[in-house]
Amino acid sequence: MRITDLIEKKKHGLPLAEEEIGWMISSYVDGSITDYQMSAMLMAIWFSGMNETETLCLTQAMEHSGDTVDLSSLPGIKSDKHSSGGVGDKTSIALIPWVASCGAVVAKMSGRGLGFTGGTLDKLESFTGFRTALSNEEFLTQVKNIGCAIAAQSENLTPADKKLYALRDATATVDNLSLISSSIMSKKLASGADAIVLDVTCGRGAFMRTLDDARALAKTMIRIGKRAGRRMCAVISNMDEPLGHAVGNILEVQEAIAVLRGEGPADVEEICYALGSRMLMLSDLAGSEDEARDMMRRHLADGSALRKLAQLVEAQGGDPQLVWHPERMPLAERREEITAETDGIISAIQCDEIGNASMILGGGRLRKEDDIDLSVGVILEKKIGSKVVKGERVATLIGHNDERMDTAVSRVREAVLIVSADDAHGQDVPLVKPRPVVLEVLE
Amino acid sequence: MRITDLIEKKKHGLPLAEEEIGWMISSYVDGSITDYQMSAMLMAIWFSGMNETETLCLTQAMEHSGDTVDLSSLPGIKSDKHSSGGVGDKTSIALIPWVASCGAVVAKMSGRGLGFTGGTLDKLESFTGFRTALSNEEFLTQVKNIGCAIAAQSENLTPADKKLYALRDATATVDNLSLISSSIMSKKLASGADAIVLDVTCGRGAFMRTLDDARALAKTMIRIGKRAGRRMCAVISNMDEPLGHAVGNILEVQEAIAVLRGEGPADVEEICYALGSRMLMLSDLAGSEDEARDMMRRHLADGSALRKLAQLVEAQGGDPQLVWHPERMPLAERREEITAETDGIISAIQCDEIGNASMILGGGRLRKEDDIDLSVGVILEKKIGSKVVKGERVATLIGHNDERMDTAVSRVREAVLIVSADDAHGQDVPLVKPRPVVLEVLE
Repeated sequence: MRITDLIEKKKHGLPLAEEEIGWMISSYVDGSITDYQMSAMLMAIWFSGMNETETLCLTQAMEHSGDTVDLSSLPGIKSDKHSSGGVGDKTSIALIPWVASCGAVVAKMSGRGLGFTGGTLDKLESFTGFRTALSNEEFLTQVKNIGCAIAAQSENLTPADKKLYALRDATATVDNLSLISSSIMSKKLASGADAIVLDVTCGRGAFMRTLDDARALAKTMIRIGKRAGRRMCAVISNMDEPLGHAVGNILEVQEAIAVLRGEGPADVEEICYALGSRMLMLSDLAGSEDEARDMMRRHLADGSALRKLAQLVEAQGGDPQLVWHPERMPLAERREEITAETDGIISAIQCDEIGNASMILGGGRLRKEDDIDLSVGVILEKKIGSKVVKGERVATLIGHNDERMDTAVSRVREAVLIVSADDAHGQDVPLVKPRPVVLEVLE
Repeated sequence: MRITDLIEKKKHGLPLAEEEIGWMISSYVDGSITDYQMSAMLMAIWFSGMNETETLCLTQAMEHSGDTVDLSSLPGIKSDKHSSGGVGDKTSIALIPWVASCGAVVAKMSGRGLGFTGGTLDKLESFTGFRTALSNEEFLTQVKNIGCAIAAQSENLTPADKKLYALRDATATVDNLSLISSSIMSKKLASGADAIVLDVTCGRGAFMRTLDDARALAKTMIRIGKRAGRRMCAVISNMDEPLGHAVGNILEVQEAIAVLRGEGPADVEEICYALGSRMLMLSDLAGSEDEARDMMRRHLADGSALRKLAQLVEAQGGDPQLVWHPERMPLAERREEITAETDGIISAIQCDEIGNASMILGGGRLRKEDDIDLSVGVILEKKIGSKVVKGERVATLIGHNDERMDTAVSRVREAVLIVSADDAHGQDVPLVKPRPVVLEVLE
């Protein structure tokens, strides 16, 4: 086989065969296909597309390009959850122990944050001592003992995806449905779960800006997963504004703990219910959504969800006392408040800009090798649709006494838009109707 | 500027601005844009295309990526000729001295052969001692003295084109009108001629297979050249079968000399008249095609065209006696004849396969660094449309006593197709009407 022949084929809109895709991926990983040939192929795919069978073959070729995780020694149906990324997304930290407390078996591999999207592993390190690098044996033993673990992906999980993703990022070939789907799903399939619930975010703070795009991505990933023999479900969630109120590592962990105490923001709680109920149903632990939600409600009310988080933290070497006393996590010293300059209604909170502000404060990474500051972030006191009066606090920034704070403050100030009473033409009704957090559930 | 932004633009079908194209080419040459980014851009161009202004900007950016030749010290209008490549194309060797004998000033830069397409420089080395590597000063002085020179391109002529062409070849992005046009025209513009006559070959042995494709390429190059201030004309010529009878380096030089003696094959002579008359008209040496052809006819008849070739050869260190005694050029020892297996008419001579046979015999290069054997080749005794009787010779192969000969013989045998009397249903009229060598002239 010659890569130029395969590029020709794809250029002219012809589908690639399974053995061609398999050969291409293994040759790319071993270096016999060069970056410049693969980037020409990626651009040809961007234009010509891939059909569902090609996308499945690509996913499975990437899945098997490195190590795969074998969860077969664990009892029952193993479930996993994946989010396509957002701002303020602390869902996993509350959700995983919560569903584990209901009996779900969750062996979750997670990643670091990059750009304005935070990473669950970074956030979990807010628990002093928390270890994310577990050996395969530690990982399996912990799930066997307490029903859940959240660990870093092994170095050699889907190396084809790592190499391809870096190439796509440098060649403007990220935004293609087949390439996005295969990238996400190859990691999920390699991670070994039987049941996968996808949180496909949608809106200004997400990769998929429109509901149509999010729906197409969800459908493609569901089809791939099902054809690979997995149980699948996707929740399309709103990412027009950050999830909850907190953006920043410690701040988000504190908010996740609040959810498990029954004191969390409504949107974070609801996305946990939506995703968690589907995980329980796919794990055959509940026969209906109502039953699953009831089960979750009970385990929240009796404190077992929160206790499961403490167990998880302790099992991975973190300080479980912080679960009971999250206020002891050390936040940065400086506070800056942003107040409303007019009476009105919050009409937009530009999600990406809030994420960028948190990154500027030190809470995110621009490059993979950057350090991250767990102690900084942004608290949004108001959500889209909230009424505010002039002088009322809309956001608090937490950071250090340096010039980065001033930059971040002006970013947040510009990101929060208020429709004033003047714009409302004297009407008293809210002009802004926020979207619900769960937009659609697909299966 | 960021290359990913430019790729995004081109991906979405937007035109690139002049300064963007200029920055992209200079950054690619200096290495700050990588091969893998450029190949993604090339594929985006393949799909989205470039408009005429973009193609002109790309051409000029490549033209100025290295040295350019300044011909302004030479008198009159300097003309150049370029062929898009074919099999048995010895046109330049006859044409350049011929038009120079008529008063045209031709400072021609030429290239080596690659694949089944021969190179004028290789062929000229059939004149023992012929030097193709002239210094800029030698080149200009020779043209001043005798009106013509044919030399190798300077190492640093259009380095952007060299780098891009190698990348296109490895990434299946050769076949795009804007990329082909800008590659050819950047070299022609950098070579400094005022008037450029293009020989756009068309057919099975050419890059452009259909007349429509050849016409589109010719029109694009004419427009680019005119917008860059050059006088332009294009002849679309037939490459369904090799030009003339001879394929191979010495064999082709011998045939070119035959043309200048007035004994050449009709098709080679006609393409010389077609291209040469346009060179003379664009050089203001003739007011009409008839006048130009008359001028050429006189300089052929009085021997001055052939004498000019001898002058050219001598000026560049070659043995001019070989112009008068081309039979002294040393051909390989072995001859193999291919004869007709049936009575009939030659219906096809598969041009690329004849070129490949000559390459197999040693007369061409598969890779740039390969050596070339001047002494081998193929003589086609018949042209498309010729009647043959069973047992009559249709081709002779000239090569060495090795196994390559057998391979080449079977290639040539398969390449020459004969419609037999049986296929002709007893009719005596020729079934095959060959196309004329000149298909169209565009200006």
